[in-house]
Amino acid sequence: MTQAIAARIAQSFIDDVLRAAGLPAADAARVAELMTEADLTGADAHGIFRLPHYIRRLKAGGFNRAPDITVKQTAPATALVDGDNGMGHLVMSRAAETAIALARECGVSWVGVRKSNHAGTAGIYAAMPVEHGMIGFYAAVANANHMAVWGGSDLLLGTNPLGIGVPSGDGPLVLDMATTVVSYGTVKKYAMQGRAMPEGWFVNAKTGEPLTDPTRTSEGVLLPIGGYKGAGLAIMLGILGGILNGAAFGRDVVDFNADDASETNTGHFICAIDIKRFIPLATFTAEVDRHMADLHASKRLPGLDAIRLPGERRRQCRAERLRDGIPLPDALLAQLDKLAREVGVKAIDRRMG
Amino acid sequence: MTQAIAARIAQSFIDDVLRAAGLPAADAARVAELMTEADLTGADAHGIFRLPHYIRRLKAGGFNRAPDITVKQTAPATALVDGDNGMGHLVMSRAAETAIALARECGVSWVGVRKSNHAGTAGIYAAMPVEHGMIGFYAAVANANHMAVWGGSDLLLGTNPLGIGVPSGDGPLVLDMATTVVSYGTVKKYAMQGRAMPEGWFVNAKTGEPLTDPTRTSEGVLLPIGGYKGAGLAIMLGILGGILNGAAFGRDVVDFNADDASETNTGHFICAIDIKRFIPLATFTAEVDRHMADLHASKRLPGLDAIRLPGERRRQCRAERLRDGIPLPDALLAQLDKLAREVGVKAIDRRMG
Repeated sequence: MTQAIAARIAQSFIDDVLRAAGLPAADAARVAELMTEADLTGADAHGIFRLPHYIRRLKAGGFNRAPDITVKQTAPATALVDGDNGMGHLVMSRAAETAIALARECGVSWVGVRKSNHAGTAGIYAAMPVEHGMIGFYAAVANANHMAVWGGSDLLLGTNPLGIGVPSGDGPLVLDMATTVVSYGTVKKYAMQGRAMPEGWFVNAKTGEPLTDPTRTSEGVLLPIGGYKGAGLAIMLGILGGILNGAAFGRDVVDFNADDASETNTGHFICAIDIKRFIPLATFTAEVDRHMADLHASKRLPGLDAIRLPGERRRQCRAERLRDGIPLPDALLAQLDKLAREVGVKAIDRRMG
Repeated sequence: MTQAIAARIAQSFIDDVLRAAGLPAADAARVAELMTEADLTGADAHGIFRLPHYIRRLKAGGFNRAPDITVKQTAPATALVDGDNGMGHLVMSRAAETAIALARECGVSWVGVRKSNHAGTAGIYAAMPVEHGMIGFYAAVANANHMAVWGGSDLLLGTNPLGIGVPSGDGPLVLDMATTVVSYGTVKKYAMQGRAMPEGWFVNAKTGEPLTDPTRTSEGVLLPIGGYKGAGLAIMLGILGGILNGAAFGRDVVDFNADDASETNTGHFICAIDIKRFIPLATFTAEVDRHMADLHASKRLPGLDAIRLPGERRRQCRAERLRDGIPLPDALLAQLDKLAREVGVKAIDRRMG
């Protein structure tokens, strides 16, 4: 069972809880805005669902509540952001702003990030340059290793997600994908809902057999898309997001599900490309629209239920949820009520609107 | 059956044939070098195997033999290369050189390419910045559409390959992957060898059933990695390589297997990132080596035959083939002998060394 909660009510609740946990008001507001954006765009596993976990980390000292986030420009078009172990949303917001500013001058920019934390869904950051007539390209080293190198079973790789955002006539067109068959957030959602996972997501690390119980994933290996290709892509994105920035990768990744206190030294990168340096922005969006319409009008392949274009569900979901509210499972609402009592704020308001 | 041909003999044969077909000597030498590099690194479908097709296009006027390749710097860190319909290897070589020079100044660069052609394997270009202490990131709009949007059956998308190259202690570590389950070059290889394809590569466009006959791929749809994810990635790379540069995408792609004469307006991009703007190069390569050793030493997953790291087979293959020669199938050698007679050059020398 789920209950629809208005986005502004969810956002205000997140804001209250974060402030009660000691975050400065402006920072709490920013994180609440971005977490709510994740819920609005259908990235349920990266929205209000994460709040209990984030609060646990804030309390345990795993996040720096008052970080000194520094931006060091290292070349005309590059910068390195040190997040000082602040919440990832705050660090990545600064990185995205920096990337947009540098790309305006140089046509393209690349901003690396270290000493950050879990920043939610990739799509949010990939979409940020889009409002400025730019393309956004983002990836991160995930905050836990659920995947192995192809052929191996040691958990040394994360879902290392990738986001690419481009402008279109209907707003940002955003690809937001894990390099694994599913994101680990989706696995957590299945566990909370008590559902079995389909075969093909996990295999047992000892036997290689399918593993479908989402509460037993610690015995398994999450599978990459395209076999060795997805694992290779996760490695390369991890090198770009982690090693290049002096951030954690591989064996050095701190599992933030199991450890609330240690610094994660999370790495990300964001690249912004200023479209008008290549083609007029209006031409670009018109061409994107023309081609997306072509793809959308494609003849259907028997056996599949719908045409899926990147960003389409995201956009539809955003419109629906702005209108109808964000559907939150009862089990999650119960957790959030408990959290409200713990930090001493009002429970989430069940009224819509 | 295959016969081993020394790399320098293969390269010299390609060079002879291209010059005989009217390419200027310096251009023929460069294309021969890059095609041989594809063969050496195991990208068999992008090496000498393509020569008969390229010569057909040169004769039919599909390539401009004396292109005026222009490089327009559009911002401090960006450039747009117009290939004037020259051979893709020549156009992309210029683009990669430009990307390296701009990244040296700005820390990162993004070079878009239009009016180019098929340029061979992605890995070659992704590896070019690596010799300069940089990371290379390359993609292209493929020269034929064998894939559909997820859920559709109209062939509107290509295999749009992606290459990422980073330095390591053992030389360039290169990920070179199609966004489809296999590259179309591999399909061509299966057809030439008369082998059936495994299930999971193609489905019949009308029925959605598996299609395994590599000579009947025109009735089928090549499948993306990770379902809608791979199709979404192909779309995004196509937007970056095609639409952003005013190059062909989607319905506008010319199938260069079926049409030897029309301009393809092929688009690519290459991005170079100067590592030392983020972390000392020696630290970077040492960290890459440490993590790759970790991955390599991983416990094995039952059911899979080997640990696969990006670039490992590529590197092993290069060493083996430099020593032992490039194994060319008899059917291909027969085609190359026929080609030699047609253009009036000496047949490929069968002696090794």
